[in-house]
Amino acid sequence: ESNSNLIRATLFPGDGIGPEIAESVRQIFKVAEVPIEWEEHYVGTEIDPRTNSFLTWESLESVRRNKVGLKGPMATPIGKGHRSLNLTLRKELNLYANVRPCYSLPGYKTRYDDVNLITIRENTEGEYSGLEHQVSIFPYYLIENCLFLEIFKFIGIYYQVVRGVVESLKIITRQASLRVAEYAFHYAKTHGRERVSAIHKANIMQKTDGLFLKCCREVAEKYPEIKYEEVVIDNCCMMLVKNPALFDVLVMPNLYGDIISDLCAGLIGGLGLTPSCNIGEGGIALAEAVHGSAPDIAGKNLANPTALLLSSVSMLRHLELHDKAERIQDAILKTIAEGKYRTGDLGGTATTTEFTNAICDHL
Amino acid sequence: ESNSNLIRATLFPGDGIGPEIAESVRQIFKVAEVPIEWEEHYVGTEIDPRTNSFLTWESLESVRRNKVGLKGPMATPIGKGHRSLNLTLRKELNLYANVRPCYSLPGYKTRYDDVNLITIRENTEGEYSGLEHQVSIFPYYLIENCLFLEIFKFIGIYYQVVRGVVESLKIITRQASLRVAEYAFHYAKTHGRERVSAIHKANIMQKTDGLFLKCCREVAEKYPEIKYEEVVIDNCCMMLVKNPALFDVLVMPNLYGDIISDLCAGLIGGLGLTPSCNIGEGGIALAEAVHGSAPDIAGKNLANPTALLLSSVSMLRHLELHDKAERIQDAILKTIAEGKYRTGDLGGTATTTEFTNAICDHL
Ligand SMILES: CC(C)[C@H](C(=O)O)[C@@H](O)C(=O)O
Ligand SMILES: CC(C)[C@H](C(=O)O)[C@@H](O)C(=O)O
Repeated sequence: ESNSNLIRATLFPGDGIGPEIAESVRQIFKVAEVPIEWEEHYVGTEIDPRTNSFLTWESLESVRRNKVGLKGPMATPIGKGHRSLNLTLRKELNLYANVRPCYSLPGYKTRYDDVNLITIRENTEGEYSGLEHQVSIFPYYLIENCLFLEIFKFIGIYYQVVRGVVESLKIITRQASLRVAEYAFHYAKTHGRERVSAIHKANIMQKTDGLFLKCCREVAEKYPEIKYEEVVIDNCCMMLVKNPALFDVLVMPNLYGDIISDLCAGLIGGLGLTPSCNIGEGGIALAEAVHGSAPDIAGKNLANPTALLLSSVSMLRHLELHDKAERIQDAILKTIAEGKYRTGDLGGTATTTEFTNAICDHL
Repeated sequence: ESNSNLIRATLFPGDGIGPEIAESVRQIFKVAEVPIEWEEHYVGTEIDPRTNSFLTWESLESVRRNKVGLKGPMATPIGKGHRSLNLTLRKELNLYANVRPCYSLPGYKTRYDDVNLITIRENTEGEYSGLEHQVSIFPYYLIENCLFLEIFKFIGIYYQVVRGVVESLKIITRQASLRVAEYAFHYAKTHGRERVSAIHKANIMQKTDGLFLKCCREVAEKYPEIKYEEVVIDNCCMMLVKNPALFDVLVMPNLYGDIISDLCAGLIGGLGLTPSCNIGEGGIALAEAVHGSAPDIAGKNLANPTALLLSSVSMLRHLELHDKAERIQDAILKTIAEGKYRTGDLGGTATTTEFTNAICDHL
């Protein structure tokens, strides 16, 4: 009974407050008559009794087939030895660029009123390689030029763990760096942006961040109409808090993107208000709310759906449904600007439903 | 002709504006009758013709002997294949903790007026290990269970570089983590601070940042009177820009410290206003201005000496010359608060000399 005029999109409501804020998106899409049919799948930290899984192959296939999806928050248990679902999705779907627009919301006052920037984060490698080791060394004093010892050594028999020393590997590849740089410049060009800043720490990590910069420079040459600059991450953070209007589009390796996109979100009020969209190979776009799953308020109709709603707007733009995107975004921003219905995190007392209804009234 | 009542301290004026702002410290110390005799050495990016060196053994010995010193900015040329002098000093003098107090300056308005925090940065390892490689692999398809090939392989003959893939190693040790954690808790206790927050990304780097946290927890147990919490770095940056008053003392691995201390400096006006002090093994304290050497305004009497002056105050406190420290700090803060004499970076037109003289008038 699927309607062929409808675009199919995958929906992962996620953990905690996920289902409530996803419901808000569903309702608003219905009122705005968005031609989308949701294909909902459960992906989350708890095992789903229906599938006995927290992430089924069908869920991944759904995104791969539809090429477009929306995901709610998924919890990342610290040190539970169980890889974050967010990371698993990035890896399985090869979501190589994470795009986070960040702009001051009219009527919602923070210390900054002039924020309008885009962070584009490499999303697959760098400090997120997952390669970590206890450091071990070969005690050379054991060798006396003996072939057998050489062979034992090769086989690894004599390697000794150094107590209290661990290492993590940051891996930077030319391929992934070029890919995200290309995405950033293309984004800047097609979105009327003027400048791309590559954020790095190549004064310390000359090889890895150095390679990242080299790739950005190569791509920059192909876009002479876009200004290009390089900014050291510590200095970038200082400049961002002093004067965020100095920046336009920022592109950077994985961890720096993680840090700077959260910093930028903080400037305009927090992760509850900022959209995010992951771009994958083959034209996949998985929009997501990047805030936490807020288990303390889950199921209480208190959650702020703004980040997921604005992410769903990113998704609509990706689908070139610009009219619908504009209408929904306007209604969200108006509701926040009016300030009559605001959820608790924004200092108000509205429920998720009241806030959602107010948006619908503006549609 | 050295006066035995005087404490000897090493002075490295550094590059660019370094000599001018060091002169400002000398003048103020003289007027305030600080019982310090400077032992000045040149350390800088240019070769000193007198010694034909940019860093002499005598310079290092001077700090090791005096156990206390003050350094101006030293330039870090990006990608010149020549290790930063800042890093060389940290390594040679084993400066394991970098302490940066950051507080709102009365009368100097920024977007924040409630900043009062201390960042304590591990200063010797982590992402600053200097270990970076082209990744190479052994092409196993070449081996046919042949002993000679095994040996060749061991010797490394057959390793092949993977093009376009590089890695940096982040090294975390139990020893350095315990040492900086111990310093942070001791600092909190002796400076009337209530809370220590360990900043990390152990949800991704479970082994390295995990070990760092484990060490912090061990030390925290010895200081039951100090509150202890752990904050993920991305979240920490978001909270810092939203509400810096949430934090007190922050302790963290090297790169996070680099990033967060600059972010915090940005909250109160920038690196031109924040002191820094490096603590080394054996009770060494090397205070430093962490801003750049500003070659564009060097020699023009336009530099703001505040960061170096406040760093010299940190040095005096380390020497337990609390009266002098208090008097000089008061005079600096009053001069800034009055706002009559401010250097260009703070929106004023005063020269370095005028600003320094104004401080002297307040002494
Ligand atoms: C939850 C965590 C693994 C994740 C990350 O570090 O990437 C989050 O901070 C994000 O930014 O999406
Ligand atoms: C200049 C640079 C090598 C240095 C660092 O990265 O540590 C600087 O940013 C600092 O914070 O002292």
